Amino acid sequence: MKNTLKASMLVEGNFGLEKENLRVNSDGTLAFSPHPAALGDKLTHPYITTDFSESQVEMITPVQDTIEEAVGFLHTLHNIVEESLENEELLWPQSMPPILPIDEETIPIANFGEQGKELEEYRQYLSKVYGKRKQLVSGIHFNISFPEELLALLYQEKKSEEVSYEQFREGIYMKAAANYMKNHWFVIALLGGSPAIHASYSQYVCKSKTAHTEKGCVSPLASSFRIGKCGYRNEREFILDYSSYERYKESLQELITHKVINSEKENYSALRIKENPNNGAISHLEVRHIDLNPFEASGVSAIDLRIVHLVMLYGLLEEDKEFNEQAQRRAHEYQLTAADRGRDPQAMVSVAGEKEQSFQEVLADFAERFLKELPQDLPIAYQEAIDHLKGLLEQPEQRLASKITASFDTPEMFIQWHLEQSRKHREEAEGKNYNFYGKKDLELSTQLLMKEAVKRGVKVELLDRSENFITLSKGEKKEYVVQATKTSLDSYSHILMMENKVVTKKVLKAAGIQAPEGNEFTDAQKAKDFFGLVKGKAIVIKPKSTNFGLGISILKENNSREDYEKAVEMAFEHDNTILTEEFVSGREFRIFVINDEVVGILHRVPANVVGDGEHTIAQLIDRKNEDPLRGKGYKTPLEKIAKGDAEALFLKTQGLTFEDIPAKDQVIYLRENSNISTGGDSIDYTDDIHPSYKAIAVEAAKAMGVKITGLDMMIDNIQAPAQPNNYSIIELNFNPAIHIHCHPYQGKNRHLDAKILDALGF
Amino acid sequence: MKNTLKASMLVEGNFGLEKENLRVNSDGTLAFSPHPAALGDKLTHPYITTDFSESQVEMITPVQDTIEEAVGFLHTLHNIVEESLENEELLWPQSMPPILPIDEETIPIANFGEQGKELEEYRQYLSKVYGKRKQLVSGIHFNISFPEELLALLYQEKKSEEVSYEQFREGIYMKAAANYMKNHWFVIALLGGSPAIHASYSQYVCKSKTAHTEKGCVSPLASSFRIGKCGYRNEREFILDYSSYERYKESLQELITHKVINSEKENYSALRIKENPNNGAISHLEVRHIDLNPFEASGVSAIDLRIVHLVMLYGLLEEDKEFNEQAQRRAHEYQLTAADRGRDPQAMVSVAGEKEQSFQEVLADFAERFLKELPQDLPIAYQEAIDHLKGLLEQPEQRLASKITASFDTPEMFIQWHLEQSRKHREEAEGKNYNFYGKKDLELSTQLLMKEAVKRGVKVELLDRSENFITLSKGEKKEYVVQATKTSLDSYSHILMMENKVVTKKVLKAAGIQAPEGNEFTDAQKAKDFFGLVKGKAIVIKPKSTNFGLGISILKENNSREDYEKAVEMAFEHDNTILTEEFVSGREFRIFVINDEVVGILHRVPANVVGDGEHTIAQLIDRKNEDPLRGKGYKTPLEKIAKGDAEALFLKTQGLTFEDIPAKDQVIYLRENSNISTGGDSIDYTDDIHPSYKAIAVEAAKAMGVKITGLDMMIDNIQAPAQPNNYSIIELNFNPAIHIHCHPYQGKNRHLDAKILDALGF
Repeated sequence: MKNTLKASMLVEGNFGLEKENLRVNSDGTLAFSPHPAALGDKLTHPYITTDFSESQVEMITPVQDTIEEAVGFLHTLHNIVEESLENEELLWPQSMPPILPIDEETIPIANFGEQGKELEEYRQYLSKVYGKRKQLVSGIHFNISFPEELLALLYQEKKSEEVSYEQFREGIYMKAAANYMKNHWFVIALLGGSPAIHASYSQYVCKSKTAHTEKGCVSPLASSFRIGKCGYRNEREFILDYSSYERYKESLQELITHKVINSEKENYSALRIKENPNNGAISHLEVRHIDLNPFEASGVSAIDLRIVHLVMLYGLLEEDKEFNEQAQRRAHEYQLTAADRGRDPQAMVSVAGEKEQSFQEVLADFAERFLKELPQDLPIAYQEAIDHLKGLLEQPEQRLASKITASFDTPEMFIQWHLEQSRKHREEAEGKNYNFYGKKDLELSTQLLMKEAVKRGVKVELLDRSENFITLSKGEKKEYVVQATKTSLDSYSHILMMENKVVTKKVLKAAGIQAPEGNEFTDAQKAKDFFGLVKGKAIVIKPKSTNFGLGISILKENNSREDYEKAVEMAFEHDNTILTEEFVSGREFRIFVINDEVVGILHRVPANVVGDGEHTIAQLIDRKNEDPLRGKGYKTPLEKIAKGDAEALFLKTQGLTFEDIPAKDQVIYLRENSNISTGGDSIDYTDDIHPSYKAIAVEAAKAMGVKITGLDMMIDNIQAPAQPNNYSIIELNFNPAIHIHCHPYQGKNRHLDAKILDALGF
Repeated sequence: MKNTLKASMLVEGNFGLEKENLRVNSDGTLAFSPHPAALGDKLTHPYITTDFSESQVEMITPVQDTIEEAVGFLHTLHNIVEESLENEELLWPQSMPPILPIDEETIPIANFGEQGKELEEYRQYLSKVYGKRKQLVSGIHFNISFPEELLALLYQEKKSEEVSYEQFREGIYMKAAANYMKNHWFVIALLGGSPAIHASYSQYVCKSKTAHTEKGCVSPLASSFRIGKCGYRNEREFILDYSSYERYKESLQELITHKVINSEKENYSALRIKENPNNGAISHLEVRHIDLNPFEASGVSAIDLRIVHLVMLYGLLEEDKEFNEQAQRRAHEYQLTAADRGRDPQAMVSVAGEKEQSFQEVLADFAERFLKELPQDLPIAYQEAIDHLKGLLEQPEQRLASKITASFDTPEMFIQWHLEQSRKHREEAEGKNYNFYGKKDLELSTQLLMKEAVKRGVKVELLDRSENFITLSKGEKKEYVVQATKTSLDSYSHILMMENKVVTKKVLKAAGIQAPEGNEFTDAQKAKDFFGLVKGKAIVIKPKSTNFGLGISILKENNSREDYEKAVEMAFEHDNTILTEEFVSGREFRIFVINDEVVGILHRVPANVVGDGEHTIAQLIDRKNEDPLRGKGYKTPLEKIAKGDAEALFLKTQGLTFEDIPAKDQVIYLRENSNISTGGDSIDYTDDIHPSYKAIAVEAAKAMGVKITGLDMMIDNIQAPAQPNNYSIIELNFNPAIHIHCHPYQGKNRHLDAKILDALGF
């Protein structure tokens, strides 16, 4: 294919990942426990189910626009599964199995209940034909499709009228499939990650009589035992017809007719061509040979997948050449060599009628052609993948298989080292479990809601990413949600009520609920004329619709007419209606109400550190900033405390500098304002506030007719019961953040993500 | 009271109006028909009910912030009643009754049904005591209160600690009441509007034996027979104690004890002090002596009410002086003289122990003091009222009573002239019945919805005027509505779906509904790279969220890469996501759906005139612009066609000028765009479109999960059934205007105001 497109477009694609991980006990033996209950019904769960064994968790990402996102989604699925594990179980991060029971019969087949009886029966059939142990070999499946608009553009540029778009499209996929099958051994040799086998597997499964298969082995030469002779593969390799999709399917059907395999599902090739059941056209290509990478929590790295993707694209750029029987046999031979002896400098390859060649030379030759042929203007992420690939070629010790075998040298250590990897991933995940990987551009609240939905088996779709606009669906039920809390539970006019401070106050007051006393003006002169009303009082002057506090002034008791008039003018710069309100004393609390129930209460405290009598303020800040909840730019539940001019100035007003050492338990504030964005702390008070305030919050939500709201309430004394003069509701927010209640600086996770889903009926 | 406030603040007030009009047949006889059914249940209707007689419609405005608004609301109530009249009935625009039946018994007492039995019984009691004819005398009641913040400010400025705010407030009201009672004869003399009586009233009611009372009369001397000896008043004037509210109530109670009157309701003084039943404090003052003004559709003019208001405020500025018995007797004497002989140069007045004075001299003296005492810096509307007052003083023929008696000179003509006035008001109203008077600053859609609500007896409250934010309530039911179509019927997330073009398209397509084909880009370079996809096609390039068409480009089939790239850049200036869409052919229709039903379909046509072979284009424009539906600045359903540069230029492209005379039936377009704002026509197609498109519109609304929406659909041929290739839905509007469907240039009023209220359950 002549490529007329920019490389940045050529790498556009749609990507999906599937991954299996075995659940193991903390000693590395296969877990016999049932699939975690927290993950819902594995028969209908769209993302998390089981593969062959009850202990073999299967995670499936939906189609994503980038490889990074697909890996991120998989990472999140992995974290969700980890969080759901019981009895100190771990997820086995290696394709080759952990310690398997001596009695194969005890390996539990996945149980899908009455409705999933067929699935169980199929697994029983597989047990008989292949044995249970082999079925436990796990890995990554990588689904790739080319975006229709890209194919349309390629077709357009071809300007051929002999071929229909559908034929053109099929041709692209068939060429990509055939050439990938031709070249995939290259990927196995470089990226394979299963160079070791535990004896509990090898002595039963591996037919070769070499020593390592009985005691297990840690091979310095192999790249991927999973793909090799001991792996999970068709006993006899077979030849398929790649000349058209129709003939491909026919050749597969012939294998079934001749009982080589029993169904298409038993085609364990490195790549499957997948079909869209709605129109019979090719939907995507499934790359099946990728091993689990125990160094990655997600089980696979984006950079490795980009190499796979490039090898596939390289196939599209190669000249058209039939993938005939000879070529297929050569590919099989190369695959097995790459798998079992991919790092062996002595490995020789040949197929019938061809002379023997050094496998490493073959590999180097391919690499040279591959690197020469690739476009030069690839996006940065792909250029990095190429650099990475060059490193693997030049330094074989950098290959995954080498890094694994460098980490341990006995089959026992094989178990221990992998368990450690698993524990390490888990620990890392726990500190940052507020993220949905690959979706970090979304608001934290949306990430949390999506994660909880995915956990429950609720299908999540991004309808408009930049707006945090998602759909949630399960069975017949479908809900549209924007920014986590804009839902169908609230009606539009009631949202507009919350948005409008004037209306909010009128409605609250009519319901007998306290809101700041004040006046509303649509005319600046009139507002000024009424100075007499506010003289000598602490007041707030603000535009009706405030955005980020713009145009708001607070005047103290000793206010002057001049200050008042200036404040009025400033407020009118932001709206044509302004409010003058009494300044309400007390502390401000965010009270989150869902369906007439208070589900979280939060108070924010200005950025601060607590002395220990030893460290300087600067050191205490650094230490506090190590909390994984703190980051920069609203990507985390809390922000790092800065050591900037504002903080230095505020310290100075207290006669302090960053280098002072506060006494033990002395609280040093770095800021006057309590915003989270300037390093403030969020503190959960859900269980610490007198119930009367909660009752008022619920009453206020009812009066406003709203189901999801974050009320801002000033409270004088949280222990004293509410009285008309000791609290005041400042506003009701129609789009309150939920993440601050899930990951506060102090206090419990109030799981508002779950509460929102409950309220939506999922 | 020492006034330290600016005059602009002093005239702040809250105002309400009540008005009675008798229903008459087209010959001027009292109508015996029941209260119009279209006006709902008069027992519970908050705005329109009946007074004494079934034929005596009573209209009550809610409290308004300005006199102008109160008059406007009354005007609208009047129009609503007029529109509801059957059998060619008219509203009698004069305080003194029309032709009454000889047999008084046939005058129908208001029937409030079983639940309103008490009301009917009270009216039977009144018939007995006062006679039915007197009860038919009609007029205006004007309710005035002082805003609390104004009173608070006055109290603040007073800086007295001896008097509580409540006492201070009561003092203000009592002084205003007493002094108004003292001075109100001045208003009667100048503004009285009932100088004529029909014989069917006078011969039965008037006890004086002068000739005019038997044959009826048209008096050149009287100002207000309604307030005079033949009017509706207490037989014996009584003295009340104005020294405090407590004593005032006691003195009224004493009259009841002594059977002078039977209840407070029978205190027919020119002013009543009204109480807030919740706290027993004075709520407002009710001025009861104002006559109907037959020249005004609303029955009273704002300028006259401002004079009344100024006389009341003048009373506040007068020095404190007891309103003792002597003063009250003097006020009674002046009142009667003003009423029966207000324009009589010979009229003399005196009370016991005082020497006789010329009434006109007394009036001139009062006027001089009044004008001198009033603040100089009154707002313009009040200054105009003063100028008007000066005119009435200097030219007695300008007084209302004089203008009435100048219009006819016999009792028969009295009937005919008033019927003519009534017909004139009605005709004027019919052409502009899209307005809610006094609320013309609101959007037309909101005005229409409010008017229909008021008609149905649904209580309407403006929660936030600048946002067109209203509440509608009836009984326990309450709804919040913004801009007429933002209601509780639609949920927030579904509104956000409509607002988002990307989401809308995805959802419509998923439901199998046609929307323009296209692509979405978040990256300008990528959009540009995809030029190949749109080359040679007519396309629209637009930002995801378009506002007023900003950033939209339309490229024709011969588009160039350069134009395309420029259009992409322009679109990205307005949003971070853009859409490139096929250009859809056909005509655009706005299809309004409420609760899964199409309730209106509209098509807009560019500004045009149709030739008659005689007039120039300029003349045809002028004639078309005379339509009361056309105005300027979105205050009317259609805009006037301009004769500006744009129109001249567009004519020039057709080889025409404004001075050309088009042939008969030739359509001349003045604009290319079809916007209503540039003089376009709105044409109702509700009954003219193939039903398949309506079905699709309903399906689209269902797919989007929305209850109120205005869909924009492109249709190739409105007679042909819908096919996948002959229509396309451009967008769904979540805040569609309703007025264009109610008052189109061509076609029926589709009463969407009523349909929205139906949908809301009112």
